[in-house]
Amino acid sequence: MAELGYVGLGVMGSAITGRLLEAGHGVTVWNRTREKAEPLLASGARWGESPRAVAEGSEIVFTMVTNTDAVRAVTEGPDGILAGLGPGKVYVDMSTSSPANTRELAKRVAAAGARMLDSPVSGTSITVEQGKASLMVGGEADTVERARPALEAIGPRVIHVGPSGAAVTMKIAVNLSLAVQMLAFSEGVLLAEKTGIPREKAVEVMLASVIASPMVAYRGPLVLGHPDEVWFDCHMMQKDMNLALELGRELEVPLPTTALTNEFLTAANGMGIGGRDFAVLFDVLASMTGVKTEILEGVVE
Amino acid sequence: MAELGYVGLGVMGSAITGRLLEAGHGVTVWNRTREKAEPLLASGARWGESPRAVAEGSEIVFTMVTNTDAVRAVTEGPDGILAGLGPGKVYVDMSTSSPANTRELAKRVAAAGARMLDSPVSGTSITVEQGKASLMVGGEADTVERARPALEAIGPRVIHVGPSGAAVTMKIAVNLSLAVQMLAFSEGVLLAEKTGIPREKAVEVMLASVIASPMVAYRGPLVLGHPDEVWFDCHMMQKDMNLALELGRELEVPLPTTALTNEFLTAANGMGIGGRDFAVLFDVLASMTGVKTEILEGVVE
Amino acid sequence: MAELGYVGLGVMGSAITGRLLEAGHGVTVWNRTREKAEPLLASGARWGESPRAVAEGSEIVFTMVTNTDAVRAVTEGPDGILAGLGPGKVYVDMSTSSPANTRELAKRVAAAGARMLDSPVSGTSITVEQGKASLMVGGEADTVERARPALEAIGPRVIHVGPSGAAVTMKIAVNLSLAVQMLAFSEGVLLAEKTGIPREKAVEVMLASVIASPMVAYRGPLVLGHPDEVWFDCHMMQKDMNLALELGRELEVPLPTTALTNEFLTAANGMGIGGRDFAVLFDVLASMTGVKTEILEGVVE
Amino acid sequence: MAELGYVGLGVMGSAITGRLLEAGHGVTVWNRTREKAEPLLASGARWGESPRAVAEGSEIVFTMVTNTDAVRAVTEGPDGILAGLGPGKVYVDMSTSSPANTRELAKRVAAAGARMLDSPVSGTSITVEQGKASLMVGGEADTVERARPALEAIGPRVIHVGPSGAAVTMKIAVNLSLAVQMLAFSEGVLLAEKTGIPREKAVEVMLASVIASPMVAYRGPLVLGHPDEVWFDCHMMQKDMNLALELGRELEVPLPTTALTNEFLTAANGMGIGGRDFAVLFDVLASMTGVKTEILEGVVE
Repeated sequence: MAELGYVGLGVMGSAITGRLLEAGHGVTVWNRTREKAEPLLASGARWGESPRAVAEGSEIVFTMVTNTDAVRAVTEGPDGILAGLGPGKVYVDMSTSSPANTRELAKRVAAAGARMLDSPVSGTSITVEQGKASLMVGGEADTVERARPALEAIGPRVIHVGPSGAAVTMKIAVNLSLAVQMLAFSEGVLLAEKTGIPREKAVEVMLASVIASPMVAYRGPLVLGHPDEVWFDCHMMQKDMNLALELGRELEVPLPTTALTNEFLTAANGMGIGGRDFAVLFDVLASMTGVKTEILEGVVE
Repeated sequence: MAELGYVGLGVMGSAITGRLLEAGHGVTVWNRTREKAEPLLASGARWGESPRAVAEGSEIVFTMVTNTDAVRAVTEGPDGILAGLGPGKVYVDMSTSSPANTRELAKRVAAAGARMLDSPVSGTSITVEQGKASLMVGGEADTVERARPALEAIGPRVIHVGPSGAAVTMKIAVNLSLAVQMLAFSEGVLLAEKTGIPREKAVEVMLASVIASPMVAYRGPLVLGHPDEVWFDCHMMQKDMNLALELGRELEVPLPTTALTNEFLTAANGMGIGGRDFAVLFDVLASMTGVKTEILEGVVE
Repeated sequence: MAELGYVGLGVMGSAITGRLLEAGHGVTVWNRTREKAEPLLASGARWGESPRAVAEGSEIVFTMVTNTDAVRAVTEGPDGILAGLGPGKVYVDMSTSSPANTRELAKRVAAAGARMLDSPVSGTSITVEQGKASLMVGGEADTVERARPALEAIGPRVIHVGPSGAAVTMKIAVNLSLAVQMLAFSEGVLLAEKTGIPREKAVEVMLASVIASPMVAYRGPLVLGHPDEVWFDCHMMQKDMNLALELGRELEVPLPTTALTNEFLTAANGMGIGGRDFAVLFDVLASMTGVKTEILEGVVE
Repeated sequence: MAELGYVGLGVMGSAITGRLLEAGHGVTVWNRTREKAEPLLASGARWGESPRAVAEGSEIVFTMVTNTDAVRAVTEGPDGILAGLGPGKVYVDMSTSSPANTRELAKRVAAAGARMLDSPVSGTSITVEQGKASLMVGGEADTVERARPALEAIGPRVIHVGPSGAAVTMKIAVNLSLAVQMLAFSEGVLLAEKTGIPREKAVEVMLASVIASPMVAYRGPLVLGHPDEVWFDCHMMQKDMNLALELGRELEVPLPTTALTNEFLTAANGMGIGGRDFAVLFDVLASMTGVKTEILEGVVE
């Protein structure tokens, strides 16, 4: 068992840290607001005074934060992770951030004598809790091997994708399909509903069909009603779409369905429901058929 | 065990008839070209001289043909199925055709004293052979119950969706996602590839992710190379997209991702590869990044 | 001056007949409802008892009706135009209908010893009244010359585009840009407005810019308010878009902006404002930014 | 007549400076490469040693550079325009850059005692040379009045749009229509061409129609062949589209046709023709119909 560190205890980071503790690892944690760490501290995690302190006390330190700027905030400066890294240590960033930033950061980590991996997780916190998450990993092969026991404690499927930045690129390449699949699914549901098939029945049938990806299976039922908790809202989804679109322009790859779907996420924001799970793409489209869903009832005047 | 009839022995119809024979049903078959029936005749099926003859000799007669016009061709006229139906019989159309035509046909079947179901199959001939196909059924509940044993011999999951036309509508509502998911998947693969990740690796990772619907799992690997056999080409896919778009205009449901993706199917046709599986949406998009795939090599000058 | 006939007295047909009368031509008219003919009869036009009677009494007979089915209704049957045509006569269809139907109809007209031209008008009834309309003409060159004096009385610019069906194809090819330009214009106006620029000012600036086609100049101000009279509603615009999309699929030409914009016309229908000028594409888009325009106020609950 | 300064002598900047000289103004110029200034120096312009020197010697100093970064390069630092401004002076930025940057820069100019206007030009260098350019202006009303004589020397139509940043926002809002109109126009041309109408004829007819904006009138003929000189290539056009899309996300305005068209500009880049005028949107679409245009012949292998 290794001494690990975890910085960034959102829904996902907390679920992952929970898995690491269950597997018997020692975990030192840090979060911008300490409150979110309490359940994990109660389960045996230790509190670190700063990202740097977490890095200093760990063989492998993980981060999982909101975006590229947040990665910079926890890695740079006197209290940042970079300041706490040294020979033999591994830094694993699980955030979905800019691949260009990842590649640059990997160089700075190497300059400090340590090694960096990018390893975004495919799936939700529930997938993680159920031990079904897949991990893509970018970095050098021997570093991947060193981190493998910890990574496999998080999810059974660990795929070494390529060099630094490759995993986060794959994450972006995967995630663009999340929103597109959701919008296409919504088109089908509304078509069925307008022809007289109850929405519940339409969802049931579609979930039994060949288009039912795990994403559709999980998110499809949200067109019948959203839980209070929100795991991945339109703003977060749009952040990933923007990363994809920027990368597409840089690499000269046209992304037609991504670009179009992204504008429907913008519409969700414009209609005041961008803080809900991005399954509200359904509600945006429904409004274009003259149907005002419950979620819109509460929001748009 | 019932006396059944099957009209239309394409790849899908043959697979289904094979399942019915295996389950111990007697099956009389008819196809426009008799040649395709030979393997089934060798397995115990009987040949009927016309669609009408098949209907006359069966308790339940199935059709699975290309489109709305083909449905008319096998049901109408002196040799058509309608002429062979009578009280107590059930006619099950498994084709993906116009829901409006289905509803009208159901009335004519009822006028002949028989009952009609629409029951398109979700999945490929392989899904059928593996006994994993799902069947959506439209029509009256008691008719569904009468046909259920035969339907369950085809696939274990039989879902009564609603009245006549409801199942074929659901099929259309599902199928629009096939092409859209394929195009979004292609965007991700090309993004990954242009960043330096081998195409094989990108496909592997995406197939392990939450976007991997059975459709993506089946068709995704086609971006690495197509088999000689083609199951669902761009023309067939576009036929379903057109049905969806017509229905959308009629019911006033905008279908943005469907409409956009359909134009990429048109491009596949324009580029001379419309006769290949619609997974060539990848090749169309690749050509827009300056990459000429093997399939395009052979075709476009 | 020639003896002319005009069948179909909508806003456009009436404006054109008015021009023909002003130019000194004799015009016999017919319309499904006689009421609409009254102002023209008061200005010197004569009433014909049927489309056939109009054709019998004219050297050149024009039609301008809603769609392909309406063209069939006034040309076929014992009272139809075809029954009244004969050697030396010219039939000019100004409707926007299916090019395939036009080509077939031209053959039947030729079989009757007469000649057919297709000549849809670019512009609105106002353009016609101001004598600024352009006419595209499809058919044989010598037939165009025979009809030229009458055509030039309608609008000064008469362009012989090609054989039968070519002009109506050009009309469709032009018209797809109407809706697309309107939607792109709306995107610009909303962008300006949300940044704090008054909508009136945004429209003024855009109308002074290089994107101000006559269409934009005419229709742009409608985002500030619609007149009561409607010249070209969403249903009519969508009819033309559908003709374009069908033609595109037949000829294997992808039409991405057409297909996308068409779905926004569907949304206008779904939101209950499809009976207004298609400039309500603005209102559809505005609703996606959370802005409910006056037109939507009255309609969507 | 006033003492003016002009920084940034690309095709557009040179044309504008030419107009100012013709009107009798004294103009001091600076450009990153002096070579481009030679024709203007021959016509009476004076050379300034740095942007700062130009600002010091002028009552009104203009800039017209490539993008936001280039604006920063000529305004900041010891040799930048800001260092040369002082009470009574006016700085007019004619570049299409980020509105947010414009607003911030205006504050720094005001802090130096001077005033700033943003005044992007609608039209091409040819429009400017013909004296037909329209100028949108953002800033305070009295500053606009002070600069008006110089602005009107550039183009007769000077529209005060709103406060700082408003004009550049309007430019972006206008420019998104450039590319969208071009793509829609291309769809029409290809539809006509595939139906048998010569491309030349299709262009002629469309240029006589209601969709013929000045942009279409100017750029439409490029589908018949490009001149050697390139005024506004895909990279420049995409820069403006990106500014629009960023602004749209920030202001929560969905821009569906902009987003879609932008991906076709990316395709132009991917196909190796991004350095040509953005009218190559036609060539991208043509390639999707299996037609390889002359421009593509030379580039894609």
